[in-house]
Amino acid sequence: MNPTPTITWTGECVRLLDQTQLPARTVFVDIADEQQMWDAIKRLVVRGAPAIGVSAAFGAYLGVRNFGGDARALLLRLSEVCDYLATSRPTAVNLFWALKRVQRIALQASDDDSDPKQIKQRLLDEALGMLDEDCATNKAIGENGLQLLERCATGSSVINVLTHCNAGSLCAVQYGTALAPIYVGAQRGLRFHVYSDETRPLLQGSRITAYELQQSGIPVTVLCDNMAAQVMRSQQIHAIIVGADRIAANGDVANKIGTLGVAILAKHFNIPFYVAAPISTIDYDLRTGKEIPIEHRAPEEVSHGFGQPTAPKGVEIYNPAFDVTPSDLVSAIITERGVATAPYEASLAALRSSESK
Amino acid sequence: MNPTPTITWTGECVRLLDQTQLPARTVFVDIADEQQMWDAIKRLVVRGAPAIGVSAAFGAYLGVRNFGGDARALLLRLSEVCDYLATSRPTAVNLFWALKRVQRIALQASDDDSDPKQIKQRLLDEALGMLDEDCATNKAIGENGLQLLERCATGSSVINVLTHCNAGSLCAVQYGTALAPIYVGAQRGLRFHVYSDETRPLLQGSRITAYELQQSGIPVTVLCDNMAAQVMRSQQIHAIIVGADRIAANGDVANKIGTLGVAILAKHFNIPFYVAAPISTIDYDLRTGKEIPIEHRAPEEVSHGFGQPTAPKGVEIYNPAFDVTPSDLVSAIITERGVATAPYEASLAALRSSESK
Repeated sequence: MNPTPTITWTGECVRLLDQTQLPARTVFVDIADEQQMWDAIKRLVVRGAPAIGVSAAFGAYLGVRNFGGDARALLLRLSEVCDYLATSRPTAVNLFWALKRVQRIALQASDDDSDPKQIKQRLLDEALGMLDEDCATNKAIGENGLQLLERCATGSSVINVLTHCNAGSLCAVQYGTALAPIYVGAQRGLRFHVYSDETRPLLQGSRITAYELQQSGIPVTVLCDNMAAQVMRSQQIHAIIVGADRIAANGDVANKIGTLGVAILAKHFNIPFYVAAPISTIDYDLRTGKEIPIEHRAPEEVSHGFGQPTAPKGVEIYNPAFDVTPSDLVSAIITERGVATAPYEASLAALRSSESK
Repeated sequence: MNPTPTITWTGECVRLLDQTQLPARTVFVDIADEQQMWDAIKRLVVRGAPAIGVSAAFGAYLGVRNFGGDARALLLRLSEVCDYLATSRPTAVNLFWALKRVQRIALQASDDDSDPKQIKQRLLDEALGMLDEDCATNKAIGENGLQLLERCATGSSVINVLTHCNAGSLCAVQYGTALAPIYVGAQRGLRFHVYSDETRPLLQGSRITAYELQQSGIPVTVLCDNMAAQVMRSQQIHAIIVGADRIAANGDVANKIGTLGVAILAKHFNIPFYVAAPISTIDYDLRTGKEIPIEHRAPEEVSHGFGQPTAPKGVEIYNPAFDVTPSDLVSAIITERGVATAPYEASLAALRSSESK
């Protein structure tokens, strides 16, 4: 059992799992230059913040690997390639962060050694390092989360988990965040059954979470979002686990729309509600989740989501992209550095300072 | 403002709103004989228990109105027509109930008077009576519910209501149950804003509830089911109101899947949760909702609900048709005879005995 890798380096090119073909077909595409990478990011062949960041870093390397000029010209060329790649998804923060990171690396390398070949090698190493780093972070989240899940399910031969949206290997390089404890546990022979909310309007739960768990041989059941209460009531759900887009310093969690509802149901049924996310998701400048403005998306996602209208013409549609779950509904926040519990101001701050150790 | 009538008698034929064309088009079909009515019920041109019952009664009349035999032959012919109509939707309890009712009426009429013409008139009168009866019941539910809604929204110029699924005029002859207070209030000039859960998997909320409210000029906003928590949190929702498939003697409510989740959210946000249903929905032989087995429907409704697969092939699907909301989450049950509140054993029993008054 290995979670599907979304990004691998073949030695010659970047191999991406084409997520636009899911769940119908499993197709990989080989990316050999920066145009192909731009296109792959643009068309959502690759998606999810960590995966986009790593892909962009590889794209930057691919854009300069055959460049013939000297170190100074190479840096200029790299800057052009990065500007170009940045236009593939203008709202993806991780994309800009990754492109800045590789340019800084190239600049540092050009100080030490002005051989363009060495600079290119440093760029490739950095991309490979980001690949490994993402895997390592998520594996650590998996280890930390698994301890909690095992505790919730003491005495049960199968650990039953409900999740919302996709925070699995397909949004990252491998393992993912919310699903990482399940993959790590399954690799050790533990048995899981995952209940996956389909997650309207874009159905990441039924299309992507169900796909990657099925591929990894982990039993998964898809349900409509409005069936979660009935599942919690009738099945023995040991824990809920979800990812996060952004976490405030007080532990409030912004995540895919519907997360708040799941958290309230979990509290009602007395089921632990866990959030799994890398430390980089915690915005320490954000005091509480109330400061996060709720982005609203196009009404057509709801009214025309499946190729035919499902609501009368002209009717008003409410379509927020995410909601904020207040920290008092969160049983624990699982990071690669450890698990935070209430009071979150203190526990999250402690994880932050453990960074500098 | 008048809620869209689903069934009208033109004097010559039954005019049905073709619900298979919703929400794209508003088309009426005229039904002149029993075959056409069989087809309309079969194809879901007309749907919803009360509407099917009334339609079947008209269908029985249409099947004999041109019959030339004597009273005895007419009864035989009516029995054949009823057997035939009963095969249009073999699981619709209201269909059988209505067909039995018209046969009993015909039998009684043939005792009093053996003129076939008179028997036919009695059949038509009965169908027209059922039409009026359904309207009157729902209007009374509307009156009783409106008092509660007005109380919840004291001081507000608009009454904001959230509903789930469709318990509006299109499942009945007119007015419906959950939406009846809104129609009755709007006719008096009160202002409403209805938030309608789309109600996966079959989207009755976005397809039907949104349609009929829009047609009646009542502001309506469609949301995905998983957005209900965010709506309750961010908009000022004064009350939740839903219909019911079956209510136990203790007030437990079986209704469309997702109702339980909405009730739990309502409790969390301290919003009144009302159930509107005719007395005939209360099953006094059923002690609690725990005795109601949960029917599971075809997985394709979830995995192929929009003309293309939305989940990977072979994945397990959970698709219960309804859930049971325990009575402690129900703020009141609104019937045509009055409003019941906790303790429900006593209050529902009191409504039952008021029947014989």
